[in-house]
Amino acid sequence: MRFIVTGCAGFIGSNLVDRLLMAGHEVVGIDNFSTGQRRFLTDAVSHRSFTLVEADLLDEVGYEDAFEGAQAVFHLAANADVRFGTVHPRRDLEQNTIVTFNVLEAMRKHHVRQILFSSTGSVYGEAPIIPTPEQCPFPIQTSLYGASKVAGEGLITAYCEGFGFRAWIFRFVSILGERYTHGHVFDFYRKLKENPARLEVLGNGKQRKSYLYVQDCIDAMLTAFAKADGNVNVFNLGVNDYCEVNASIGWISEALGVRPRLDYSGGDRGWIGDNPFIFLDTESIQSLGWRPKYSIRDGVLKTVEYLSTNEWVFEERV
Amino acid sequence: MRFIVTGCAGFIGSNLVDRLLMAGHEVVGIDNFSTGQRRFLTDAVSHRSFTLVEADLLDEVGYEDAFEGAQAVFHLAANADVRFGTVHPRRDLEQNTIVTFNVLEAMRKHHVRQILFSSTGSVYGEAPIIPTPEQCPFPIQTSLYGASKVAGEGLITAYCEGFGFRAWIFRFVSILGERYTHGHVFDFYRKLKENPARLEVLGNGKQRKSYLYVQDCIDAMLTAFAKADGNVNVFNLGVNDYCEVNASIGWISEALGVRPRLDYSGGDRGWIGDNPFIFLDTESIQSLGWRPKYSIRDGVLKTVEYLSTNEWVFEERV
Repeated sequence: MRFIVTGCAGFIGSNLVDRLLMAGHEVVGIDNFSTGQRRFLTDAVSHRSFTLVEADLLDEVGYEDAFEGAQAVFHLAANADVRFGTVHPRRDLEQNTIVTFNVLEAMRKHHVRQILFSSTGSVYGEAPIIPTPEQCPFPIQTSLYGASKVAGEGLITAYCEGFGFRAWIFRFVSILGERYTHGHVFDFYRKLKENPARLEVLGNGKQRKSYLYVQDCIDAMLTAFAKADGNVNVFNLGVNDYCEVNASIGWISEALGVRPRLDYSGGDRGWIGDNPFIFLDTESIQSLGWRPKYSIRDGVLKTVEYLSTNEWVFEERV
Repeated sequence: MRFIVTGCAGFIGSNLVDRLLMAGHEVVGIDNFSTGQRRFLTDAVSHRSFTLVEADLLDEVGYEDAFEGAQAVFHLAANADVRFGTVHPRRDLEQNTIVTFNVLEAMRKHHVRQILFSSTGSVYGEAPIIPTPEQCPFPIQTSLYGASKVAGEGLITAYCEGFGFRAWIFRFVSILGERYTHGHVFDFYRKLKENPARLEVLGNGKQRKSYLYVQDCIDAMLTAFAKADGNVNVFNLGVNDYCEVNASIGWISEALGVRPRLDYSGGDRGWIGDNPFIFLDTESIQSLGWRPKYSIRDGVLKTVEYLSTNEWVFEERV
């Protein structure tokens, strides 16, 4: 099959590109390299079935022809960091909502009608039901990021109804693994390299979060695409577990062989809009036969291992 | 108090402006007159407490100073017609989502932190629970209009969490009454004036919808603003009843003294994304002491009466 992958040079996108190429598919990757890394595409660009389109999806033109002849679009291009919404409120609107609209319009123009979308567990805000099922009560958004992703979901499902599209919407927990370039493991690793004796922790360290290893995440998306045949298919993706930030700090410190003093900024939230407890009900995706192969601890350790052999990712960040 | 009313020259906006002025408030109205009518502001513009700002809220600049010193914003500016989303997909995104973002940013800049928002029962898509409560299961959007409004709700509630805003979000059924300028009564009235012998009806006429009279709607918004004191207050607004399109046609025909033959386009939906059954649970707003004073039939008849004495509204439409 011929797939489009937007955000192809990103963390999840580049791993997905490699998997799709390995499975014998043709892949057209689109990225503007605003946060994506060319080095993540080192293998892909040498592959004859890969085409790279360097374009900004916030523009309305300049990339649509790439959509011609594709069977489906993995729309992963996004501002993927939930934490800085209040610093740059327009960024989530533009990168996540308007870009999704532009992708849908490019698809419509070229008669591509299947879209797989990286949404987020953040769309549940502070969910009243934990573990949170896909059908939980109509949520109140608590972050600009969640708001921008729920807007993307709305656009996509309206295109399903209005234009005969089919959609697979994935509400991710945080993803870990190779090519991970933002989030708590990234930040803690960098800080501990700078100062192994002391670690500043946002909040009280008791925030409970769930994580999923990137290859498990990709397995889940491909399973859902192969097996879920509704017009609108919505799946939580995560492991059947969660951990405290403090536990994660313990695993990271042990892997690095450091014993930092922990200084907490205090409060039960790490930042404005932080959700102190994220744990998704993944019964729906598991009913299709998918199971995560890696635990949260596995994911954290694999991420630390990746970062320790790829410290260039810290230098690339401005 | 000093209020901003966006969409001040629209159907609901202009009625609200008159009510706020009558109650002794200062009102700054903003409109770009894309669908608003100057004649709806005839009374308002002669009032010393009214200021009209003619501006397009899709622009990022040119109107923000109007927000200075306001206590709250009634954000009613919108593309208010659910029916043509698939014809103009960008319109709902721009007029409802991006404009809402721009209004929030103007508010933030000028330290105005209370917003009342005209959302819609369309955000429930085809709700699995009828009458539909505010806390119904996480809905799937079925119209570009609903998608754009759920995006607006998400932005607003994220601003509540992120910037200390307070919000009153109203999910309306269709509103009827004086200055009504789009929707089924408008269309049927015009068609019956052109040809009293025959009426083309979209769908099978059995779609069940709920309606609310505009002054009841305004009463409900003012009641909620006075009495609901959460940071995020979400209310369905409607009557405790619904009617078939066929019943409404009967009332309109009777009021006009015509007996048309009804030609149905067929199917249980009038258009793509039409919801064959809209009926909202309004227990929450009623718990604040608000009750609608007018029935659906009252609303339809008042609308016909308004249209028959204001046929210029048909001429103004392009």
